[in-house]
Amino acid sequence: MLTLYHAPNSRSTRVVALVHAMGKLDEIDIRTVTISRQQGNDLPDDTNPHPEKKVPLLVHNGEMIRESSAIMLYLTDHFKSPLGPQIGETGRGEYLSWLSYYSGVIEPVIVGNFMNVQGNPVFVSTFRGLDEIHASIERGLSRGPWIMGDGFSAADLLISSPYLWAPHLLPENPIIRDWVKRCQEHPSMVWAGQYT
Amino acid sequence: MLTLYHAPNSRSTRVVALVHAMGKLDEIDIRTVTISRQQGNDLPDDTNPHPEKKVPLLVHNGEMIRESSAIMLYLTDHFKSPLGPQIGETGRGEYLSWLSYYSGVIEPVIVGNFMNVQGNPVFVSTFRGLDEIHASIERGLSRGPWIMGDGFSAADLLISSPYLWAPHLLPENPIIRDWVKRCQEHPSMVWAGQYT
Ligand SMILES: N[C@@H](CCC(=O)N[C@@H](CS)C(=O)NCC(=O)O)C(=O)O
Ligand SMILES: N[C@@H](CCC(=O)N[C@@H](CS)C(=O)NCC(=O)O)C(=O)O
Repeated sequence: MLTLYHAPNSRSTRVVALVHAMGKLDEIDIRTVTISRQQGNDLPDDTNPHPEKKVPLLVHNGEMIRESSAIMLYLTDHFKSPLGPQIGETGRGEYLSWLSYYSGVIEPVIVGNFMNVQGNPVFVSTFRGLDEIHASIERGLSRGPWIMGDGFSAADLLISSPYLWAPHLLPENPIIRDWVKRCQEHPSMVWAGQYT
Repeated sequence: MLTLYHAPNSRSTRVVALVHAMGKLDEIDIRTVTISRQQGNDLPDDTNPHPEKKVPLLVHNGEMIRESSAIMLYLTDHFKSPLGPQIGETGRGEYLSWLSYYSGVIEPVIVGNFMNVQGNPVFVSTFRGLDEIHASIERGLSRGPWIMGDGFSAADLLISSPYLWAPHLLPENPIIRDWVKRCQEHPSMVWAGQYT
């Protein structure tokens, strides 16, 4: 059995959406925990084994897997799900690339914008900025309707998710806006948004 | 054939070290390109297909794979290398977790320290800081001598690499210092450091 630690309306919501989209709700024990939040007075949860009391966290056979991108990859590989290309299949390289790019660039750039340091030369040289991210997303969508082409994947859930909490960072570009809307209206995202 | 775009003394050096450590130099075409650098006057290289002219970049069957963590995983999977646990093997979850944690936390925290924003509350809440990273590394090394226990892996090459360019961020902790030294003295790291 796999165990997923989750808090409503957080970065683990997209992982819950993936579990739903894969049809694996009966094979994963989803445990809801509290987390400390910028608004509100919830406390970190003693029952959450994450070393920093964050979510999501996946536990399988005694191994702790942290970071949304690692967890999503682990899940689509473990269940051999069509929501992530498997090793040797077309799109595997692009899939790994999107997941890492999310962790290593998209999230830092969004946080940098919240912190208002997006113009710092060290920041720009390391991560670039929203314009480059939107150019990448647009390149991904050029074959549409999803970021890797025909098929909806875990990468869509992950890459579109920041626009849920930071809709003001969405560019005017209708191709990107329509895709984000498509992702947010996906039945699994809607379902996960209501899961507590 | 796989093609790896590389610039000496850069984030692609650790990938070249991995190729050497896997014994796959004859199966990967390593192309050296110039990149713009904070010091020096090299220019971005027109022959580098990376959308932002960065390195490393891996190209395989027409797919572009960016981000060191994605590239290293792609390589150890493609070559079924013991330098990365394979799907279904013990340590697979930890391996994915280390690679994502590098991209999503370690690199942003190091860059945040360079930018001197490591105390910003939004930064701390998202990424935490060097203390938490060093606690994670120490937990990894508790079974030693390598970060995932007995076996040297691509995770050692990746996680130890920032201390090459930021040795002042190394904690006093001798367990961590000895491991970084072990990684830096690994024959493949030494070899890659001289590769141009
Ligand atoms: N890079 C991590 C970020 C995890 C994260 O920061 N989660 C937040 C929820 S949105 C959290 O658990 N915060 C509680 C805390 O910081 O104590 C991932 O993508 O999984
Ligand atoms: N997150 C990326 C970072 C890649 C990166 O920033 N590479 C630097 C070399 S150390 C680069 O190519 N810089 C050239 C530039 O920014 O134009 C990774 O880990 O692969």
